[in-house]
Amino acid sequence: MNIISKDLKQQGIFSKEIMHVGEMASGAALTVPVYRLKGDSDAPSAYIQANMHGAEVQGNAVIYQLLEVLRSEGLIDKIKGDITLVPYANPVGCNHKNGEYTLGRFDPITGVNWNRMYHFNQKVIAPFAKQNIDSSTEQVTSAFKQMLLTEIDEKLNDNKWGLTTGQRIAYQLQRMAHQADYVLDLHTGPISSKHLYCPEYAKQSAHFFDIEHTIIIPNDFDGAMDEANFCPWWTLQQEFSQLGRDFPIINESFTVELGSQEKIDLDVAKEDALSILSYLNYKGVVENEAFKPRKMQRYGCYLKDYKAFYSPMGGMVDYLADFGVPLKAGQPLARILRMDNYGDGDALHYLSFDHEVLPILHFASASVNQGTELYKVFTRFFDL
Amino acid sequence: MNIISKDLKQQGIFSKEIMHVGEMASGAALTVPVYRLKGDSDAPSAYIQANMHGAEVQGNAVIYQLLEVLRSEGLIDKIKGDITLVPYANPVGCNHKNGEYTLGRFDPITGVNWNRMYHFNQKVIAPFAKQNIDSSTEQVTSAFKQMLLTEIDEKLNDNKWGLTTGQRIAYQLQRMAHQADYVLDLHTGPISSKHLYCPEYAKQSAHFFDIEHTIIIPNDFDGAMDEANFCPWWTLQQEFSQLGRDFPIINESFTVELGSQEKIDLDVAKEDALSILSYLNYKGVVENEAFKPRKMQRYGCYLKDYKAFYSPMGGMVDYLADFGVPLKAGQPLARILRMDNYGDGDALHYLSFDHEVLPILHFASASVNQGTELYKVFTRFFDL
Amino acid sequence: MNIISKDLKQQGIFSKEIMHVGEMASGAALTVPVYRLKGDSDAPSAYIQANMHGAEVQGNAVIYQLLEVLRSEGLIDKIKGDITLVPYANPVGCNHKNGEYTLGRFDPITGVNWNRMYHFNQKVIAPFAKQNIDSSTEQVTSAFKQMLLTEIDEKLNDNKWGLTTGQRIAYQLQRMAHQADYVLDLHTGPISSKHLYCPEYAKQSAHFFDIEHTIIIPNDFDGAMDEANFCPWWTLQQEFSQLGRDFPIINESFTVELGSQEKIDLDVAKEDALSILSYLNYKGVVENEAFKPRKMQRYGCYLKDYKAFYSPMGGMVDYLADFGVPLKAGQPLARILRMDNYGDGDALHYLSFDHEVLPILHFASASVNQGTELYKVFTRFFDL
Amino acid sequence: MNIISKDLKQQGIFSKEIMHVGEMASGAALTVPVYRLKGDSDAPSAYIQANMHGAEVQGNAVIYQLLEVLRSEGLIDKIKGDITLVPYANPVGCNHKNGEYTLGRFDPITGVNWNRMYHFNQKVIAPFAKQNIDSSTEQVTSAFKQMLLTEIDEKLNDNKWGLTTGQRIAYQLQRMAHQADYVLDLHTGPISSKHLYCPEYAKQSAHFFDIEHTIIIPNDFDGAMDEANFCPWWTLQQEFSQLGRDFPIINESFTVELGSQEKIDLDVAKEDALSILSYLNYKGVVENEAFKPRKMQRYGCYLKDYKAFYSPMGGMVDYLADFGVPLKAGQPLARILRMDNYGDGDALHYLSFDHEVLPILHFASASVNQGTELYKVFTRFFDL
Repeated sequence: MNIISKDLKQQGIFSKEIMHVGEMASGAALTVPVYRLKGDSDAPSAYIQANMHGAEVQGNAVIYQLLEVLRSEGLIDKIKGDITLVPYANPVGCNHKNGEYTLGRFDPITGVNWNRMYHFNQKVIAPFAKQNIDSSTEQVTSAFKQMLLTEIDEKLNDNKWGLTTGQRIAYQLQRMAHQADYVLDLHTGPISSKHLYCPEYAKQSAHFFDIEHTIIIPNDFDGAMDEANFCPWWTLQQEFSQLGRDFPIINESFTVELGSQEKIDLDVAKEDALSILSYLNYKGVVENEAFKPRKMQRYGCYLKDYKAFYSPMGGMVDYLADFGVPLKAGQPLARILRMDNYGDGDALHYLSFDHEVLPILHFASASVNQGTELYKVFTRFFDL
Repeated sequence: MNIISKDLKQQGIFSKEIMHVGEMASGAALTVPVYRLKGDSDAPSAYIQANMHGAEVQGNAVIYQLLEVLRSEGLIDKIKGDITLVPYANPVGCNHKNGEYTLGRFDPITGVNWNRMYHFNQKVIAPFAKQNIDSSTEQVTSAFKQMLLTEIDEKLNDNKWGLTTGQRIAYQLQRMAHQADYVLDLHTGPISSKHLYCPEYAKQSAHFFDIEHTIIIPNDFDGAMDEANFCPWWTLQQEFSQLGRDFPIINESFTVELGSQEKIDLDVAKEDALSILSYLNYKGVVENEAFKPRKMQRYGCYLKDYKAFYSPMGGMVDYLADFGVPLKAGQPLARILRMDNYGDGDALHYLSFDHEVLPILHFASASVNQGTELYKVFTRFFDL
Repeated sequence: MNIISKDLKQQGIFSKEIMHVGEMASGAALTVPVYRLKGDSDAPSAYIQANMHGAEVQGNAVIYQLLEVLRSEGLIDKIKGDITLVPYANPVGCNHKNGEYTLGRFDPITGVNWNRMYHFNQKVIAPFAKQNIDSSTEQVTSAFKQMLLTEIDEKLNDNKWGLTTGQRIAYQLQRMAHQADYVLDLHTGPISSKHLYCPEYAKQSAHFFDIEHTIIIPNDFDGAMDEANFCPWWTLQQEFSQLGRDFPIINESFTVELGSQEKIDLDVAKEDALSILSYLNYKGVVENEAFKPRKMQRYGCYLKDYKAFYSPMGGMVDYLADFGVPLKAGQPLARILRMDNYGDGDALHYLSFDHEVLPILHFASASVNQGTELYKVFTRFFDL
Repeated sequence: MNIISKDLKQQGIFSKEIMHVGEMASGAALTVPVYRLKGDSDAPSAYIQANMHGAEVQGNAVIYQLLEVLRSEGLIDKIKGDITLVPYANPVGCNHKNGEYTLGRFDPITGVNWNRMYHFNQKVIAPFAKQNIDSSTEQVTSAFKQMLLTEIDEKLNDNKWGLTTGQRIAYQLQRMAHQADYVLDLHTGPISSKHLYCPEYAKQSAHFFDIEHTIIIPNDFDGAMDEANFCPWWTLQQEFSQLGRDFPIINESFTVELGSQEKIDLDVAKEDALSILSYLNYKGVVENEAFKPRKMQRYGCYLKDYKAFYSPMGGMVDYLADFGVPLKAGQPLARILRMDNYGDGDALHYLSFDHEVLPILHFASASVNQGTELYKVFTRFFDL
């Protein structure tokens, strides 16, 4: 049984609430469970959510294992900063089936990617920097967080023309994320290795996750949760820098890609929970010297060098290249079957590159149209 | 029978080809039929496509009626400029069913809107303007068209990382559109009045279509066919202007919204064909004084004032407001049924605005989630 | 406001409960609201449900109008028998969107029609008849209802191998329906006239609905709600008949097709509510002489003569034949556009029959594959 | 290159044709490639098709490997009977994506399973048996095949009310299958072990496939390809038996489940090709002593004991039981995560049976509703 003792609840160490994020046509409420662990100090806080894309379920299992580890004997006392955990973050995507699979990458009505609806208003940063040029770091941090919250509240309460279904969900999640110092958005690839999207300034932190592959991303906002959290802070730093002030960024935000979608593996989830605890320990959110990163070969790649390869033909794909193993020029990435050509031409096509790549993920199905995203690969990768 | 006489074919006045735009998993070719009518002079040319969004089929019927009118006795001689007609422009969207309806607004794999994949590279315009500052209008026009074609050809032939399924289709259509002077992309709304998206500089042309509602759009590229065609010319004009040259824009491009999706009405299509012929006659592509615009009240509205209203609740909608009739402040737009509230609260909610609007279209289904786009309305509209 | 007075609630005349019918992947409960009006006598009772197919929403509006009429001044006293009203009967189908439309005709995972999952075990009838050959009609009726309930309870509680998602919903609805004497399952066609599925023995009752078209169906169980309710009683009558007893069937069950799917019209719903009240008045469930059927031409047709016509070609359809108006041999039913044939052959195909038919409904979209169900028509129809 | 030599083509040993099986809304033809290898004797013939369900693609790879083996040096001479090979049997299902996966188990418009649309008219068998009671086995066989073909031709040519999209495809495939003596319909499970559906009378043949698990099915027609082929012959035998004649069944028909859907593995396909060649060698269609079944533990189970287990709750599933390994009573089949219960109750539920089972396949996704088919298992299994 995973019942939290009354004791912990009464002390306010563990709490749980149900957040209302929308309504369906029948009036059925769209709800999201929110778990909060209260730290025993004013150490930095963390926000972790999972399953914004419907088929990317493994993060829920990681949150389960995080809670199981944290509430195990003796450990709950070592929680220094507040931790907020949100599984099933997107109740539309999570429950939307088409055939046997979960069609949860985009709003089924509009096609808009659920992870492209967060908010960032770049225009408010420069005035804020000017206004707070002489405040202390603590004052700046506190006032900036407040401004981000106010921004979101205004979006949520601006109902003259309404919000889209996805914005209403996203903004409510973002509201919680903005209150934390460290934000982890747990995703997965289609069929995929583990990899991490990491803002350039937080590169050092990538060493504390047990994740082999890190994509280093610039300060561009494209609507995703991680960007919505780090872009404001990064931009603030840059604005201060232009004003001659050297402002440290405390906040960090990552998209953690846990492996493949449509899969729950609680044993692997335990490993990923420990990987996250290693990061949280490094940051002082929890304190336990057992939470250390594993030794492993870590590869980095800049986002501009992380390439999608679109299928040059329609067909059925036998994916050959292993993830995380450098694929030399000329080695087969995949072979595509085209039975309709049998007898007249090539029924089997081998694909390869003319330079080395590091395969990270591939498409979820063997059936591809011409132009389907087949593989994503690191091109110019380096030891991290 | 709609057989074109050998005579017309031999004279090259009518021709038809099948364009290969992609491949499905089974190897099945994705094809698009292309009809060409050859003008008898060097008058400006037109490109008209339909059905880029799968459910928006009425444009195919309009192309049918255009051909029927143009090949009727005597008329074929009055075709001055070349006319290219492309029905079924998107063979993936056109044939993709989910349940009884056509799921053709976005790529079913990625969710990307099929009409957001066209190409425009703003960076090439300024250097071109500088280089051609002293060329004649004819030279500029010819060289600029050639540059646009080269741009597209490079995209189509750059196969190192491939193209998405939608890009491959879009670029091949765009390649044909760039060769014409006037481009009409035939769409429909969900349940909708007729309306026209018109670039600001071509406002005068809106009077030649038999369409009551015109949205005047700025020179921003967001990936759509109409923008991909007029943005280059508009930008070129602006670049020349900065260099002190007054360059006339000949090219015009419109998205023509023919009414509601999932419907074919050949009688209404005949009217829309005549509306288009009125525009083509005005522009000299065809020559027939019978092709005159009808007298009607025409309303205009700037894109920034064309507002989507998102449902403030989940529920089932009885749409009340008529299209094209100004809806006064406080008058009911729609009422939303929420049977689950019956007995305890409000089961019926009336929606209205606190200012006048002109309803243009509404959602296709009575079932909406909180946040579904319910209506689109003109807010500050004016006589055009 | 649609708040039911405390008074009515306290007297037990109106009650409302939320039925739990399943769970989604996130744990979200699937619930259905159930409204009960208590009659003031032991008059026969009625069960009315709506929206088992997700896009067929108009029945919810009819239930709304039924409640509005019944609770209006003075009328609530005239409710003689119990009435149970269930809108949003299928919370999966009701809320499942694919694109703008509701994909609610079948389980999105399995493809099984939601209205083919009810239960009827023919084997139990003959033994029951034998055992109760000498019981009074009242005793038989009571014992038979009890047996049907026990059958359903056993299905619901047999959890060794589990139930499908749809069975769990259907059985819980059926459990309520079996307790009533008259059962109405409110559906709609795709784009459709109003029509009624009526068991042969209840033919007389068709005159009390304001519905022009009645399909007379035999005693065959194919999994639908109406069949699951009348087949047992009809079969019981036949078994008794073979044993030499003339047993009257009191129970009646209908599928009421209210018109087109994806539409809410509260004004039309008011008319349909009155039509249903006319039937309930005829049967003594309510008592009000104002509830009388309207005079209209009523057509009947046996199920075997109610024909689906599948499209002989792929194409885009301009539906021509009006519903409810006899279409003479040779008159056009529809015309199909095939632009791809333009220039080489027939781009427009007219469809007609070589005998008279009465068109009842047609497909929801203009786009059809070869073999899509285009129209359903009465062939040998007669005045009812 | 998989080009067949002109020589083989000229001798008529290899031929290929494109079968037209339907049309889409745009007029696009639905086509299926058909490969024929001509045997050098009047030995029995075989028909093998793949990919009737869109996501079940591996059979296409098996057909590829069959052709590769058969046309390899020397082997083509050992083809005794005609072999017809049909990959991509269902062009609608094969190419229909929803999100990244293939929604190809049922017609996306109607929900009807593509493998439930074949034809069998039981009524014609008894008269045929009576009429041919004195004919020789050869005469009976030939006349019976002819009757089956005539039946199908009548269905295909009866166009008064039309055929559904799926019937038109199914009947054209069935027409080819009826001409063969041995029919293999290549499918896959969702995530699955290899298994074979085998008619009871052909049980002996199961030993010649390299497939561990065999489901022995009775002579009931439920619309599937295998049934449509063996039910007529089995019924004929029974009719003759009742007339006192002992008639041998030559024809056999199987559904071969190759493993998991959405996967192409050409190496595994080679093994499956050899497994099929072992069967064809046993039956004399090919002749090569290298084609022998592998030694393996083969389990059998009657269809009535092949049980689907429906999820007792909604949730996210960590599938634990391995395929093909007996799972003892009480051993965990799966565990279901229900994070929403965390803190208040059980967040993790273990599922097991109270008796031994042999797991054969499980659902394709980790996300299940209450009532989703979770596992299929052999209950009373035995050594075959």
